[in-house]
Amino acid sequence: MTASKSPKAVILLSGGLDSTTVLALAQAEGYDCHCLSFVYGQRQEIELARARDIAARAGAVHLVLRLDLDKIGGSALTSDQEVPKHRSTSEMAGPIPATYVPSRNLIFLAHAAAWAEVLGASSIFIGVNALDYSGYPDCRPEFIAAFEKLLNLGTRAGVEGGQPFTIHTPLLHLNKSEIIRKGLALGVDYSLTHSCYDPDPAGRACGACDACLLRRKGFREAGATDPTAYQE
Amino acid sequence: MTASKSPKAVILLSGGLDSTTVLALAQAEGYDCHCLSFVYGQRQEIELARARDIAARAGAVHLVLRLDLDKIGGSALTSDQEVPKHRSTSEMAGPIPATYVPSRNLIFLAHAAAWAEVLGASSIFIGVNALDYSGYPDCRPEFIAAFEKLLNLGTRAGVEGGQPFTIHTPLLHLNKSEIIRKGLALGVDYSLTHSCYDPDPAGRACGACDACLLRRKGFREAGATDPTAYQE
Repeated sequence: MTASKSPKAVILLSGGLDSTTVLALAQAEGYDCHCLSFVYGQRQEIELARARDIAARAGAVHLVLRLDLDKIGGSALTSDQEVPKHRSTSEMAGPIPATYVPSRNLIFLAHAAAWAEVLGASSIFIGVNALDYSGYPDCRPEFIAAFEKLLNLGTRAGVEGGQPFTIHTPLLHLNKSEIIRKGLALGVDYSLTHSCYDPDPAGRACGACDACLLRRKGFREAGATDPTAYQE
Repeated sequence: MTASKSPKAVILLSGGLDSTTVLALAQAEGYDCHCLSFVYGQRQEIELARARDIAARAGAVHLVLRLDLDKIGGSALTSDQEVPKHRSTSEMAGPIPATYVPSRNLIFLAHAAAWAEVLGASSIFIGVNALDYSGYPDCRPEFIAAFEKLLNLGTRAGVEGGQPFTIHTPLLHLNKSEIIRKGLALGVDYSLTHSCYDPDPAGRACGACDACLLRRKGFREAGATDPTAYQE
């Protein structure tokens, strides 16, 4: 290993706006990025196709793993439950919505940790955000901090004294427009990204679910054009 | 819901000696048991067939989920790496062996939590053991305690103030012979269980991997007959 070799990082990449920005940020920081995506029974498999394009465009390694979260159910994203639409900011700050997938981030992060351990990477990046989000419990800063601590107990590094894991959450305290501005400054092509929870069969965004509303507001506030083709 | 209704629990069931004993203990405590097993790319898929038989015999609900841990690799249990044989007790207390699967318990527990949340269960049972084991970091008491804490931050219960999760580890401080004695007292049929990391194509246990050695020693010390048909 030469001194100039880039440190490896695992990037959780959904194909959405946030994780795509995270990938660009990690690459700008000099990480050798290994992107991880999941086919987990989600309705909007279009995001997976976008993740493949985004990783390829970034020249990053990409691993796609299958999970059976639809067999567990409990979410509008993995079943035919209705996706809530046209919710206000205060509604988004209310009870956890039907689009919450139980333990999804925990399961994603656990796989990222497994891959990081095999790769010899000690950095994991995840695009969680505690401002413009739908109130999911597994996006909260205290959850991420507790996960990092757990990982350093439950892995080889924890027992054998290797480099401890760091969970990087560069978007945690940014609002959507700040995220978009950062991404645009790094040359992110947001036309590749997909945010909608409830696209039509052609993959067109609904424009009205939480994810679409937050995205539209973000572009508006950033003074930038959203390249998404919306149904409404 | 009537007052006499049994509380639901999710039981991680591998088809091995430990988790089968845990299922019997949980049933004896009055839980309505929901068993969870994984096809994760392990070499010894025989244990899954045993898990199905064990859950059926116990009259418990059984969910089997697929994971792609073999695509991540890093373990003798999910690749063609050699399984270490004939190790002494002091070797087992040494460095983490090749049979360690990175983040496996974390991934299993994360799925158990997802299912528990959907079922409305607040109890998760796992047969980890800190005495007669191979030194895996994710079997240690401090890992389990940190996981329980994490779960109560990252789930609906953590945010909305529901019943907090408890991770039950009834075997944590027992040695193998104590586990076997408890199981036999509850009528566990250990001929249904499979422990070996490296069975032959007919499913016969090797008799020499850590799992076989710990099992054999346990039955010997319990003064009971091991019903396993070993190759050697």
